[in-house]
Amino acid sequence: MSANLKGIGASAGIAIAKAYRLEEPELKIEKKEITDKEAEKQRFELAINQSKAELEKIKEHANRELGADKAEIFAAHLLVLSDPELLNPVLDKVSTEGVNAEFAMKETADMFVSMFESMDNEYMKERAADIRDVTKRVIAHLLGVQIPNPSIISEEVVIIAEDLTPSDTAQLNRQFVKGFTTDIGGRTSHSAIMARSMEIPAVVGTKQATSSIENGVMVIVDGLDGDVIIDPSSEVIAQYEEKKAKYEAQKAEWAKLVNEPTVTKDGQHVELAANIGTPDDVKGVLENGGEAVGLYRTEFLYMGRDQLPTEDEQFDAYKAVLERMEGKPVVVRTLDIGGDKELPYLNLPKEMNPFLGFRAIRLCLEEQDIFRTQLRALLRASSYGNLKIMFPMIATVSEFREAKAILLEEKEKLVANGVQVSNSIEIGMMVEIPSTAVMADQFAKEVDFFSIGTNDLIQYTMAADRMNERVSYLYQPYNPAILRLISMVIDAAHKEGKWAGMCGEMAGDQIAIPLLLGLGLDEFSMSATSILPARTQIKELSKEQAQSVKEKVLAMSTTEEVVEFVKETFHIS
Amino acid sequence: MSANLKGIGASAGIAIAKAYRLEEPELKIEKKEITDKEAEKQRFELAINQSKAELEKIKEHANRELGADKAEIFAAHLLVLSDPELLNPVLDKVSTEGVNAEFAMKETADMFVSMFESMDNEYMKERAADIRDVTKRVIAHLLGVQIPNPSIISEEVVIIAEDLTPSDTAQLNRQFVKGFTTDIGGRTSHSAIMARSMEIPAVVGTKQATSSIENGVMVIVDGLDGDVIIDPSSEVIAQYEEKKAKYEAQKAEWAKLVNEPTVTKDGQHVELAANIGTPDDVKGVLENGGEAVGLYRTEFLYMGRDQLPTEDEQFDAYKAVLERMEGKPVVVRTLDIGGDKELPYLNLPKEMNPFLGFRAIRLCLEEQDIFRTQLRALLRASSYGNLKIMFPMIATVSEFREAKAILLEEKEKLVANGVQVSNSIEIGMMVEIPSTAVMADQFAKEVDFFSIGTNDLIQYTMAADRMNERVSYLYQPYNPAILRLISMVIDAAHKEGKWAGMCGEMAGDQIAIPLLLGLGLDEFSMSATSILPARTQIKELSKEQAQSVKEKVLAMSTTEEVVEFVKETFHIS
Repeated sequence: MSANLKGIGASAGIAIAKAYRLEEPELKIEKKEITDKEAEKQRFELAINQSKAELEKIKEHANRELGADKAEIFAAHLLVLSDPELLNPVLDKVSTEGVNAEFAMKETADMFVSMFESMDNEYMKERAADIRDVTKRVIAHLLGVQIPNPSIISEEVVIIAEDLTPSDTAQLNRQFVKGFTTDIGGRTSHSAIMARSMEIPAVVGTKQATSSIENGVMVIVDGLDGDVIIDPSSEVIAQYEEKKAKYEAQKAEWAKLVNEPTVTKDGQHVELAANIGTPDDVKGVLENGGEAVGLYRTEFLYMGRDQLPTEDEQFDAYKAVLERMEGKPVVVRTLDIGGDKELPYLNLPKEMNPFLGFRAIRLCLEEQDIFRTQLRALLRASSYGNLKIMFPMIATVSEFREAKAILLEEKEKLVANGVQVSNSIEIGMMVEIPSTAVMADQFAKEVDFFSIGTNDLIQYTMAADRMNERVSYLYQPYNPAILRLISMVIDAAHKEGKWAGMCGEMAGDQIAIPLLLGLGLDEFSMSATSILPARTQIKELSKEQAQSVKEKVLAMSTTEEVVEFVKETFHIS
Repeated sequence: MSANLKGIGASAGIAIAKAYRLEEPELKIEKKEITDKEAEKQRFELAINQSKAELEKIKEHANRELGADKAEIFAAHLLVLSDPELLNPVLDKVSTEGVNAEFAMKETADMFVSMFESMDNEYMKERAADIRDVTKRVIAHLLGVQIPNPSIISEEVVIIAEDLTPSDTAQLNRQFVKGFTTDIGGRTSHSAIMARSMEIPAVVGTKQATSSIENGVMVIVDGLDGDVIIDPSSEVIAQYEEKKAKYEAQKAEWAKLVNEPTVTKDGQHVELAANIGTPDDVKGVLENGGEAVGLYRTEFLYMGRDQLPTEDEQFDAYKAVLERMEGKPVVVRTLDIGGDKELPYLNLPKEMNPFLGFRAIRLCLEEQDIFRTQLRALLRASSYGNLKIMFPMIATVSEFREAKAILLEEKEKLVANGVQVSNSIEIGMMVEIPSTAVMADQFAKEVDFFSIGTNDLIQYTMAADRMNERVSYLYQPYNPAILRLISMVIDAAHKEGKWAGMCGEMAGDQIAIPLLLGLGLDEFSMSATSILPARTQIKELSKEQAQSVKEKVLAMSTTEEVVEFVKETFHIS
């Protein structure tokens, strides 16, 4: 009997494979009296070595598939497993107290964990988390329990999980992991973004994937329509094989557009750019026909490590992206940390509403050492390509002026020291706070460009946390309020002869594209894998027609009205 | 040597008195062996009785000064002190283990606290807090340590505290507490709002009041200018006595305007209304010449208790307010709970960003039983006065339509059952989410009125938590972005023949008043004590002049520019 789950199609494509449940096993640890203490110590050392071997594999895999920064997590875990301060007390307990190794390990680890956690220091708390993770792995080996290691999966599967953490996704092997489905999450959750960048079909937010899918059962994940079919009949499998083949044929069609410009039926060009996180992502941008990098999120340089990246480390990364893009535009966003993105080593205080807190440019204007280091690295890299710099979370004109002044100050100092700095760096800002959209006419006089960050703009304009499922119904990209703000920003930019782009999830959305084209958006920046479908869609659209419905849409009162109208007018199913 | 602290003037007026530090004493509890167990038990019972007597006093005081709902907290504390389940184990420990009473009390209380806290239930967690409070009081008596009881202060003082909790403010005696100053908080913090409603001069957010003011030292709290002077010389005291006399003379002048209409120099009338929390507040509204209640915050009916108020309890409160206002307009805001205002007994899940979460109308549309009960109570009360109903935290037109439909459905049912319901109830909404300001033209077709809630509107428009000190610099009421949104709302209302009011802190602000008058605001709702100063100011203004600068101000780019211009144009020092 096949059953269906409905979720959110977070990454396009269809996967048909056996379910692999990624879940935490329950580890029951009993205290036992040990007579052969030597044998017990050997058993412990074996478990340590097995754990290390596993972690080495995971680390290599993460390094290969996702880059060195992601692999750092596992290097840290390996260090813990070689630390005599942790291991010796366990061996001592076995020798002197005659207890079993798992019990001794648990007691020792608990002591360290509670010691680290009691420190008022986020970095030490992270170490506590490492110890907890590693201990779980060792104890699982001692108990002969299998811990799920997505990286050692060696047959084709579909992953079933409550949610996927960065460390889970870092381990996924594209060769075997054909798709995944999760209980929670939405289109902009971490796991959804990772799925798109890895091109793995995914359906998130099904609410009941883990409660209704058994290990090993056949599962279809339809990331196109957000469906999950459990234990399908052979007829259903055949249907989906056909749908899959059709989708892959379509992908092949898209691939023909890699080197084509993005031009509407009536000959208007728009720029399709990609959002990236690391220099390694540039490959995917070019393979997918990206005309630019519209958003380089520099935070990844700062994450998964225990201190700030040096100016030279940053310079290397920025230079690499600029060189690999071969003169195509690269819009770099300066550090956007805080909110949901924490840096343990900065020791930022906990906030009651982190999304409304001390983050991004607010932090950079106060912690100017961090900001100036990044700006110097960017300025030094600027002569290797076509660099544009933008500031995130600007709320007031004063903030933009201050950030720009600091940038120009650093530039002058470098030039005075004989460093080569490009003279054509455009300086722009993200429009993601409602005040800046409302004041876009004033900002337009001072910036070189705008990039609209819809994920945050929607969340603030609707006062609804996009991570909070109870208010997710208010995350409405097509709400006329959002469209009006976008329209104000684009009009304001054009009036001053500047350009306006968008780097939120909305820019790659099928329903949003005709609307944005009609509002006059110049640059659309999206997941690399969305570029070719977007190009295909835009080639079929007429800019004149899109513009002709602008006033009508902006005068509508609800999201539902807009969506219905767009689907009908632009023949979107 | 006198020293000065600078803070935020949170409540006007000047207080000159001795410092009374409201601080938690350190309670050092040692385990001791007791030989005379009977004497120890008597000592314990004495401490219980002393604590009860104290709590009775505090409760009576709160009841008299602040109403029955505030007194409930202390009734709960008294119940704990009569609970044999808590007291008997203490007596047993003294008898069987021969330990001292404070140690026995601590051990017993800790056990209950950790038991209650471990339950996944906010209500039980609140009970843990009660036990902790009461235990502290009993142990203080056992140790002979004085716990600060602001309610038993019997000489004139100025309170010095890190912050004041609702339970602290509930105990303040206006006869003796002449003013207060705190380390933290801003103009819209709880303690600031309480200070204004109690008419006690206050300076909040001084950062170092508790670290620099000793008990008993002379202190001047200047709530007009936000200054705190520590240990002033007699010359300085004389200066401030004069300033105080001048301020009181001004207050006497204001008092003459109690029964005057609010009319500008050029003969334009605007309505000055008050924000209230309970029926008892109506007295202050009338004494201060309020022409209406512009915001009745109904949440207080739901707070400080352990279950929802019944329909009849609500009916009584609404009827009381309507009757006491004698036909003057009363705008009632339906339940705005969630965010920073929790109701333990509703068991709402913790949220990462409560200000962007499941609150107010979002909760009411889902928990319709709660909503419909309130609406029925309001409808039944409507025939006793001039009722207007508004919904908080509306983000979309669909939400407003749904809320209004539910209201009309309940009305129809009541009428069908022969209940008398007014036929002239206006139905409006708060404009406090940016999307609604941007879409005000659409909303204006469906509402009877708008009330702009600036506290939230500013926080969402600037994406800055108003409770978070690190981003408080972005809480900018005069930012042109905010003024533009307010202007859009007022213009949209007038175009459809509707009225627009404001019930945020901004409505009573000296710098905002000429701006709001110029933008065409119809109703200004503020703390009752701000009404007469506002009336005085408005009588000196010309609406025509205020309107004439509207375009100029809306074209400015920063807060600083606006403030400077307004001060100069309207002669505000």
